[in-house]
Amino acid sequence: MAIVVQKYGGTSVGNTKRLQNVAKRVVATSDRGNSVVVVVSALGDTTDELIRQAHAINAKPPEREFDVLLSTGEQMSSALLAMAIDALGHPAISFTGAQVGIMTDATHTKARIVEVRAKRIKEELDRGRIVIVAGFQGVTPDEDITTLGRGGSDTTAVALAAQLGADVCEVYTDVEGIFTADPRLVPKARKLAEVSYDEMLEMAATGARVLQLRSVEYARNNKVTLHVRSSFSDEDGTIVKEGDESMEQAIISGVTHDSGEAKVTILGVPDKPGVAASVFRVLADRTVNVDMIIQNVSEQGFTDISFTLAKEDLSRAKDAVADVVAQLGAKGASYDEDIAKVTLVGAGMRTHPGVAATMFEVLASNGINIEMISTSSIKISCVIAAEHVGTAVQALHEKFGLAGE
Amino acid sequence: MAIVVQKYGGTSVGNTKRLQNVAKRVVATSDRGNSVVVVVSALGDTTDELIRQAHAINAKPPEREFDVLLSTGEQMSSALLAMAIDALGHPAISFTGAQVGIMTDATHTKARIVEVRAKRIKEELDRGRIVIVAGFQGVTPDEDITTLGRGGSDTTAVALAAQLGADVCEVYTDVEGIFTADPRLVPKARKLAEVSYDEMLEMAATGARVLQLRSVEYARNNKVTLHVRSSFSDEDGTIVKEGDESMEQAIISGVTHDSGEAKVTILGVPDKPGVAASVFRVLADRTVNVDMIIQNVSEQGFTDISFTLAKEDLSRAKDAVADVVAQLGAKGASYDEDIAKVTLVGAGMRTHPGVAATMFEVLASNGINIEMISTSSIKISCVIAAEHVGTAVQALHEKFGLAGE
Repeated sequence: MAIVVQKYGGTSVGNTKRLQNVAKRVVATSDRGNSVVVVVSALGDTTDELIRQAHAINAKPPEREFDVLLSTGEQMSSALLAMAIDALGHPAISFTGAQVGIMTDATHTKARIVEVRAKRIKEELDRGRIVIVAGFQGVTPDEDITTLGRGGSDTTAVALAAQLGADVCEVYTDVEGIFTADPRLVPKARKLAEVSYDEMLEMAATGARVLQLRSVEYARNNKVTLHVRSSFSDEDGTIVKEGDESMEQAIISGVTHDSGEAKVTILGVPDKPGVAASVFRVLADRTVNVDMIIQNVSEQGFTDISFTLAKEDLSRAKDAVADVVAQLGAKGASYDEDIAKVTLVGAGMRTHPGVAATMFEVLASNGINIEMISTSSIKISCVIAAEHVGTAVQALHEKFGLAGE
Repeated sequence: MAIVVQKYGGTSVGNTKRLQNVAKRVVATSDRGNSVVVVVSALGDTTDELIRQAHAINAKPPEREFDVLLSTGEQMSSALLAMAIDALGHPAISFTGAQVGIMTDATHTKARIVEVRAKRIKEELDRGRIVIVAGFQGVTPDEDITTLGRGGSDTTAVALAAQLGADVCEVYTDVEGIFTADPRLVPKARKLAEVSYDEMLEMAATGARVLQLRSVEYARNNKVTLHVRSSFSDEDGTIVKEGDESMEQAIISGVTHDSGEAKVTILGVPDKPGVAASVFRVLADRTVNVDMIIQNVSEQGFTDISFTLAKEDLSRAKDAVADVVAQLGAKGASYDEDIAKVTLVGAGMRTHPGVAATMFEVLASNGINIEMISTSSIKISCVIAAEHVGTAVQALHEKFGLAGE
């Protein structure tokens, strides 16, 4: 019997009617002869509401308690979905992350899964039940509740699919799949039938918000086939799997953008070995995730170090940067929140030189200044002023012919 | 160091300001040199809201899933209280029932505590932390979440107080303590300084809604001193403890009433051995709790059996009663929801004959017909028409001089 893992996001279960539709879809999947495990996010804006409540009580809530609070959202939706499936006459059973052994480290609010013990799930599947698992949460060896960060339910689903040897992990969301660009910016954007793990990783890392980055890594490392699709239609979405020759090898798969980052520059840092290490160790110790890092050439023994990070981490990072400036004897630091990152992603880039040059020309011809550049073998990112992001994405999508015929 | 267990009900933590007041009270208790364990109910009407959501999805939600859903209310409030205490600069840590080893049987929605493993609590108290425990919930040996029924947080608190050897279990509520009658019905009702476990048990069983019945049993069996008091004042409330000579030995401690029951009569039951057993076995198997039971004298080989039960159990009971009627060849069944039970409670009754006669005279002189009577050594209950409940309670309170001087 095939095992299917399905994950439903918060908008897919945003009200009673939607929850009942999800229940119907789950039961239909079971009726086609599959063993079904469902991972569910918190209903609608439950998580934001819980965060609001926490901050009304405590401006800096202890992260352990934050996790205890936030994990209730998925526990609620998992129980409600089990009830909705029961109402359709099919047996179902819900579990918290702790109950099904989603073991994590103790990094509260951003915990990493270290082990999955799916024994109880297998037992319940063998009894013919549909198993519902509360996403986004796990438990430490000390039995403390943890959460996996925004989008963590995706990772829960992939981790369970890997552990159970599922045939597919279907990720249901409010969009039709992965697009060549954000359809809100580029109306001609096209849905991709397939995309490789590597491309999906770069897209997720650079602004495609459909999947949590870590879930794609987890899928790639464990060869879990993902199917990203809409819970509001029966259309196929986008398959994310290992890249191979049979796959469409476009030079560029998509243009992504991210307006959620800020730029930090540490000015006049003495240029000597170990400086960069000490800067980013301090940030890492405060669990600030840094994205792009650029160090300019040294002038007279001093250099500037710039990096980008999520805007919500900026206030925490500022404390760390102040320490670093004092410690290294740097001249100071500057901050810019009005930036956007535009990225071209494509596995074909590896064998097609000149993509970077074309990208820079497109931006220049639209009067857009490039503030930072970062490349990998399958992506090129440019940081530009936030106001130009729409123009940049549209121009690049057009230039690289992503809309198709 | 003295250990104090405090339990706060839903209205005591009904909004942010109240939650912060509770945090202040908890910290003050700690600052007086006590180790403090706090048991908290769900905020305000969270539980009712969750029940509403469940019923919108499924008219008869599976009880296991109901418990998964409902237990989130207390998990939320425990985390929020920990945050509020942290905001006052005192370390605090919250736990679910499962995390602190509140082990129960598997009777979902009405589980019984079978064991308490408080190891983790002791460790955290030793570290100087205030420990917050989500009330109302436990966990089975199979790791399924259970809830303890309405008022179950009281039992959580008493069970922890017993296990930890606490000096006192303070139960904070929205009333000042235990009164000689419901002050809404009897404005002259007087707060009792002390009451024995036995009297409190009868009062809780017959309508005083301040404490869950089971929590009083648990306190009596484990000699836990309870202090029932208001979270909105610093006044002493009512101490519930073992009765002894030093205690005020009033003949009557209070008049309670309960309008939440319904009466069921099974008519024309063949009068032979085992009939009552089979009736109440069927009800027990459907976890319908029966209160008073009366079997009238047999006429020509047939008898009537009447009993009372909580109104919310009536629809479930009707199914069972229909089975019983068919099975026993009884003539039929009648149901009455417009009843009330009025009860006199007092340890002094044991040594003062004539209390029952006086009670019946008071009711008769007010034109109130008695439908059922039930007695124990320290209480007399009469079932009357619901419309007379106010008159009956006021007249009895007056006749037995409960208002004091």
